[in-house]
Amino acid sequence: MRLRRENHEHDEGTQRIEAFSDGVFAIAITLLIIEIAVPAVESDESLGDALFDLWPEFFAYVLSFVIIGIYWANHHSFMRLFVRADHYFLLLNVFFLMCIAFLPFPTAVLGEYLTHGEQESTAVAFYAFGLFLPAFGWLLIWLYGQWDNLIDENLDPAYDQFLTVQYLASTAVFLVCIPIALVQPYVSLAVAVGLTLLYLLPPRQRRYRTPTPDDTLER
Amino acid sequence: MRLRRENHEHDEGTQRIEAFSDGVFAIAITLLIIEIAVPAVESDESLGDALFDLWPEFFAYVLSFVIIGIYWANHHSFMRLFVRADHYFLLLNVFFLMCIAFLPFPTAVLGEYLTHGEQESTAVAFYAFGLFLPAFGWLLIWLYGQWDNLIDENLDPAYDQFLTVQYLASTAVFLVCIPIALVQPYVSLAVAVGLTLLYLLPPRQRRYRTPTPDDTLER
Amino acid sequence: MRLRRENHEHDEGTQRIEAFSDGVFAIAITLLIIEIAVPAVESDESLGDALFDLWPEFFAYVLSFVIIGIYWANHHSFMRLFVRADHYFLLLNVFFLMCIAFLPFPTAVLGEYLTHGEQESTAVAFYAFGLFLPAFGWLLIWLYGQWDNLIDENLDPAYDQFLTVQYLASTAVFLVCIPIALVQPYVSLAVAVGLTLLYLLPPRQRRYRTPTPDDTLER
Amino acid sequence: MRLRRENHEHDEGTQRIEAFSDGVFAIAITLLIIEIAVPAVESDESLGDALFDLWPEFFAYVLSFVIIGIYWANHHSFMRLFVRADHYFLLLNVFFLMCIAFLPFPTAVLGEYLTHGEQESTAVAFYAFGLFLPAFGWLLIWLYGQWDNLIDENLDPAYDQFLTVQYLASTAVFLVCIPIALVQPYVSLAVAVGLTLLYLLPPRQRRYRTPTPDDTLER
Repeated sequence: MRLRRENHEHDEGTQRIEAFSDGVFAIAITLLIIEIAVPAVESDESLGDALFDLWPEFFAYVLSFVIIGIYWANHHSFMRLFVRADHYFLLLNVFFLMCIAFLPFPTAVLGEYLTHGEQESTAVAFYAFGLFLPAFGWLLIWLYGQWDNLIDENLDPAYDQFLTVQYLASTAVFLVCIPIALVQPYVSLAVAVGLTLLYLLPPRQRRYRTPTPDDTLER
Repeated sequence: MRLRRENHEHDEGTQRIEAFSDGVFAIAITLLIIEIAVPAVESDESLGDALFDLWPEFFAYVLSFVIIGIYWANHHSFMRLFVRADHYFLLLNVFFLMCIAFLPFPTAVLGEYLTHGEQESTAVAFYAFGLFLPAFGWLLIWLYGQWDNLIDENLDPAYDQFLTVQYLASTAVFLVCIPIALVQPYVSLAVAVGLTLLYLLPPRQRRYRTPTPDDTLER
Repeated sequence: MRLRRENHEHDEGTQRIEAFSDGVFAIAITLLIIEIAVPAVESDESLGDALFDLWPEFFAYVLSFVIIGIYWANHHSFMRLFVRADHYFLLLNVFFLMCIAFLPFPTAVLGEYLTHGEQESTAVAFYAFGLFLPAFGWLLIWLYGQWDNLIDENLDPAYDQFLTVQYLASTAVFLVCIPIALVQPYVSLAVAVGLTLLYLLPPRQRRYRTPTPDDTLER
Repeated sequence: MRLRRENHEHDEGTQRIEAFSDGVFAIAITLLIIEIAVPAVESDESLGDALFDLWPEFFAYVLSFVIIGIYWANHHSFMRLFVRADHYFLLLNVFFLMCIAFLPFPTAVLGEYLTHGEQESTAVAFYAFGLFLPAFGWLLIWLYGQWDNLIDENLDPAYDQFLTVQYLASTAVFLVCIPIALVQPYVSLAVAVGLTLLYLLPPRQRRYRTPTPDDTLER
């Protein structure tokens, strides 16, 4: 009986967070296009050339769209790892969403300045910072969940550890991309694109401790 | 028992995709108006004339609104054709949504440059490309679903084939509209409008293999 | 058994429309603020004065917010009047939503030009047109529903008639506001505000034919 | 039987309000970033400096994001305090949402003018007004709910009183911040930030009258 109540509370807590997060994901991902302005073309210039010159904007649009899309796709099963939600868990989720909702801005900066010789390293470094933020927020949610015992106890400890390593590594890669960008912007961008492509692979299946037949039925 | 689990997984998979897609549809369709800027009118000019001169913007607004509306209306029953969802199915849906969310930009380009003599062919060609993208994404989802056996086996094979032909044809028409626009922009636009009007007709009813009474109950 | 299926189809049809409409209402209502630009103030000018000069923008914001809010509040019980939804019913709803999503544009025009002597009559006339459009879309949904027998047969015919008169009258008032605005813009605006205030009163309760005890249980 | 119907009506009423509010919260919170424009940097200037100079925009973004996030987090349990919803309750909620949706505008004004010597006091006063509005709307909902007996009778009267004091105090603090800003803008801002930090603490648990075992089961 106790457990059932807890489960109910948990569901209400994480389901509201999920619904709100899905809303923020959908809005942030759809707002990305707003940052691309229609080019102003004089009558003796070519609109085709002007549209072609927007390729950094289109590149930044696609990259950020895919990244927010991956966060959306993974957030659902991420939330399934937690059996309870408390006040600070909710606040950390708000922080994470703040980082996701911030992403359209560095995306616009990257699109605007990627081909501006002197500024491209700053633009890429700022974009890498924009990618670091949600990865860091995600990591914080996970570490707080472990520290506060919000995580499903039935998860295989090896799977827990795998996730810790994965989240730490992703955050570290984006963090390292910031200084790299200042020296070699295209290397930094290639690393960010590469990590994103890795995340397009199917995620590893959740693994539980040796399950009893009873567990299987419950799940 | 096996089937039930699969059905449950499917529901969770496609229902989350549907909810997220509905969000992106609603946001993209409502953002269209943001791209129309309030005209700047001097005190000796007529606001009425300035508003009237926005007719290409209003035309582009209505056309894109109706097109996204049709995608929304059909997406629900489209998703009902699939009995399972996997990781790459989800990624293809993210790609499709990226194309839908992109549409406000070519719409704004069309609205801005439709009446600019030299640029109108480029503007229409770019808009046709903007219409081609979601049609192509939709087709990819369907072809991947067939290849990976995600589609409801109870569908009448003739109905399957009808859909394949319809999706291929729509994608091809929008693709062909791109080069046509460069020569005859208004012909290209007329074809796009015509195809959209066709999609306003009621869609063909889903058809299943000869159903047993048992099937009817299940559905 | 037949009825149950129909009811189920109806629910799915109108519930999807309602969810999508709620999304468009929420987005359109929240986008209104985006149309108000931060004033550019020189260092020797007063930001306070500049903000005060935005009163037409704030007025237009509040009026359009309240109007969309009223549509949202009433749409739910409006949909409850229909027992079935078909393809053209859905299309008319898309048309209605197109009119709602359009409203931020005339709102921005009104806010920008309400205090520009020569343009204020055009601005108010265009805004009245913007209010006429969703009222007209709503009326079309209702008339189509009557014509195609989509409306709950248990409704009291007198209540049906009351609604027809109300929807016709509202649409007519906004239509008449357009020419009035060209002569007396502030009279036109006052009528629009007055009608909106009337809609803030509690709506008349739905009335059904003399219900049998059986009906009561069903509802 | 009577009670059950009322409960059902209540649920429908407040659940629709909650879903719509969650939508407006999610959109308003995600739109905040749109107000930050990509800085225009000449080729001999530093993009890094330009981004650094946006710190008032980033500060205003974070503060408003956290404030809307807190409103979202508390709105759900706030709605749980009411057992019925009527027409004016719904209208007051629309007013509250209008204040939330307005917040991106004072946020943009604060971000733009916080570091403009002569204008900073006006900018902070306007922002404090922007914070006062939703606090006032929230208070109105609560007071109307008390006056019209919409509030759950099982709540401990001491808890009721605690909430009244809390809502009145918050509204008063933001109101007082407006004149303070005109004299000491940074003091006013510090008070607003401080109150926001207080709201990051876990909210006090709802308290009911001494519950009977029966009550516990029902809840």
